[in-house]
Amino acid sequence: MKDVAIIGIGMLKWGELWEKSIRDLCVEAALNCIEDAGVDHIDSMAIGSMSSGLFTGQEHLASMIPDYLGQRYLPAVRVESACASGGLAVRNAFLEVASGMSEIALAVGVEKMTDVNGGMATYALATAADQDFEAFHGVTFPGLYAMLARAHMQHYGTTREQLAQVAVKNHANGTRNPNAQFPFAVTREQVINSVLVADPLTLLDCSPITDGAAAVLLAPVEVAHRLGRHPLTVITGIGHATDSIALVDRPDMLHLGAVAHAAQRALAMAGKTIQDVDFAEVHDCFTIAEIMVMEAMGVVPPGQGGPATLDGMTALDGSFPINPSGGLKSKGHPVGATGVAQLCEAVMQLRGTAGERQINNARTALTQNMGGSGGSSVVHIVEVQ
Amino acid sequence: MKDVAIIGIGMLKWGELWEKSIRDLCVEAALNCIEDAGVDHIDSMAIGSMSSGLFTGQEHLASMIPDYLGQRYLPAVRVESACASGGLAVRNAFLEVASGMSEIALAVGVEKMTDVNGGMATYALATAADQDFEAFHGVTFPGLYAMLARAHMQHYGTTREQLAQVAVKNHANGTRNPNAQFPFAVTREQVINSVLVADPLTLLDCSPITDGAAAVLLAPVEVAHRLGRHPLTVITGIGHATDSIALVDRPDMLHLGAVAHAAQRALAMAGKTIQDVDFAEVHDCFTIAEIMVMEAMGVVPPGQGGPATLDGMTALDGSFPINPSGGLKSKGHPVGATGVAQLCEAVMQLRGTAGERQINNARTALTQNMGGSGGSSVVHIVEVQ
Repeated sequence: MKDVAIIGIGMLKWGELWEKSIRDLCVEAALNCIEDAGVDHIDSMAIGSMSSGLFTGQEHLASMIPDYLGQRYLPAVRVESACASGGLAVRNAFLEVASGMSEIALAVGVEKMTDVNGGMATYALATAADQDFEAFHGVTFPGLYAMLARAHMQHYGTTREQLAQVAVKNHANGTRNPNAQFPFAVTREQVINSVLVADPLTLLDCSPITDGAAAVLLAPVEVAHRLGRHPLTVITGIGHATDSIALVDRPDMLHLGAVAHAAQRALAMAGKTIQDVDFAEVHDCFTIAEIMVMEAMGVVPPGQGGPATLDGMTALDGSFPINPSGGLKSKGHPVGATGVAQLCEAVMQLRGTAGERQINNARTALTQNMGGSGGSSVVHIVEVQ
Repeated sequence: MKDVAIIGIGMLKWGELWEKSIRDLCVEAALNCIEDAGVDHIDSMAIGSMSSGLFTGQEHLASMIPDYLGQRYLPAVRVESACASGGLAVRNAFLEVASGMSEIALAVGVEKMTDVNGGMATYALATAADQDFEAFHGVTFPGLYAMLARAHMQHYGTTREQLAQVAVKNHANGTRNPNAQFPFAVTREQVINSVLVADPLTLLDCSPITDGAAAVLLAPVEVAHRLGRHPLTVITGIGHATDSIALVDRPDMLHLGAVAHAAQRALAMAGKTIQDVDFAEVHDCFTIAEIMVMEAMGVVPPGQGGPATLDGMTALDGSFPINPSGGLKSKGHPVGATGVAQLCEAVMQLRGTAGERQINNARTALTQNMGGSGGSSVVHIVEVQ
């Protein structure tokens, strides 16, 4: 298996982008990425999108996007695992390069979510849950995560303030990210007193509906050297795992098994432990999610995610910064793009180009992307070499 | 890159399967495949499905299917490229094994298409075309292929009888396939006089709406040897290409560029020419498609697909048999499953277990799977070694 480097990243400002179609979003992110890498060709493309069919009435992005990128005949595939689609697009591009099938492989994540009526967006997202045993009965994602939050509070004593602090911290980081959809600060009081969505989660506990795209370009390490990429950012570990799609089928619904296995596999591949990681971008689709992900990955023991967050452990200047980009909460959550954007942030931090949100001496990054209520997860370890 | 063998295949009877859900279909095909291979574990899974979201309201199959297969924590991904999704699932499993990321990788293709109202199925399929520039204006797939057929007749003199003969030949083969949805013979007169769908294509020129799944299991050749697989069926070539999604954007709409490039790439990887191929399973979603695919792959020169079909070249006892399984026309076309089922047929023929439709001394097979009106295509070469 070849060693694989990230040689380019491409982002754009996320939000309600009424002037941009799904093809515009993909092409803009891809061109930004190709320009950043300084290459003159690509050999293949993997596109992460959760549900372009339900959101935009457009499947077959694997044909459309290379076409609009001016890459006729390019091998391209779309991959999907609900909100983990972006992370899996990166994994697919990794397999292309690691196997030798491609030399330079592009991964693009995209979702165009705002150009449907509100009910349809919620329906589309709910197809990531078990249609027959969850969604059909009317439970949507805020409802599923609200049940997790309530159970976590009851079992571990997690408090409303601890949940709110996740949003406070991520919005604080987001104020330093010019690409964030909601780059404003919030207080714990504002989070707790915002509109109730699904008890105990309020509007400011939830990540938003977003239009956006992101891209990364992968190549063998020797090609990255030849291109003079410095500092060299290398994917040293990838872990991927799935779990029961329905909460009711899991042995312990407060343990995100797919996240735990994905993190263990990625760290084992990189020859690291979680203590070797300098910072992480994780899947904070709801405030409770970030707390449960911290616990599943072993950043803290089970039940300690809330107190650790309130103590500042995961703040930009804490001992284990989480979501320096602002996370899904502040940066936005175009579902298929999120996993790719996490790697863009990791590379910016490792390059030392993260501006006002730069973490000092960051050498090892972890990104964790998740589908549904934890039915799938993919973790990448990226290191400066 | 490791050499990759197909160590197991799993099929089931296709049709309107009202008693089986999408999870039932996947699990049945996967278990048949795992039993055929005689292995006690799998390391990863790739699921090909065009639009489980639009057809069944269920995305995130990558979480659901391993769950229902009893494979909690298995790395799994869904891949999509419209009707080429199945072929790309096999390619994904190939990358898993070729790169060393997985030892034993399962590819499952599935589509559950009948359990929606008719208009919705046609809408879902139309999302494989350009939504903004084709589907929005009311043109569906029978319409797109009818335009291709009309242009082919006008430009090359292809006749109505030649088109009909594709259906006659494939249905004749399908009578010998116990898994086919429509295993009955048809005459040219019946094809020509059946209900008009989109002039000149009638009902019997079109592949049907089908529920179905298929699976193949891949492993390194040395593992296949260890398992005592004989004869050994090896994937020696894979080619994959895309083209403009909209017909109007192609340099020559009568030339399927993605098919031509995919076939050239697969043959080059295998060190073969099209003349070395003993038989092929190709994407006959409409009768005109099989004729255009033959021409794009160089089986015959441009314009000669119709006459060659009428002359019997592609019949079971012809010099270049095409679609011994009955093809999409007679076997059925659960879109995401088709590309995987083509490889099942290839392996059965190469093993010599294809029963009444067995081709003598078949050593080298080609499978060609296609998305949309030719916006994507993937070709596999499989050889007995």
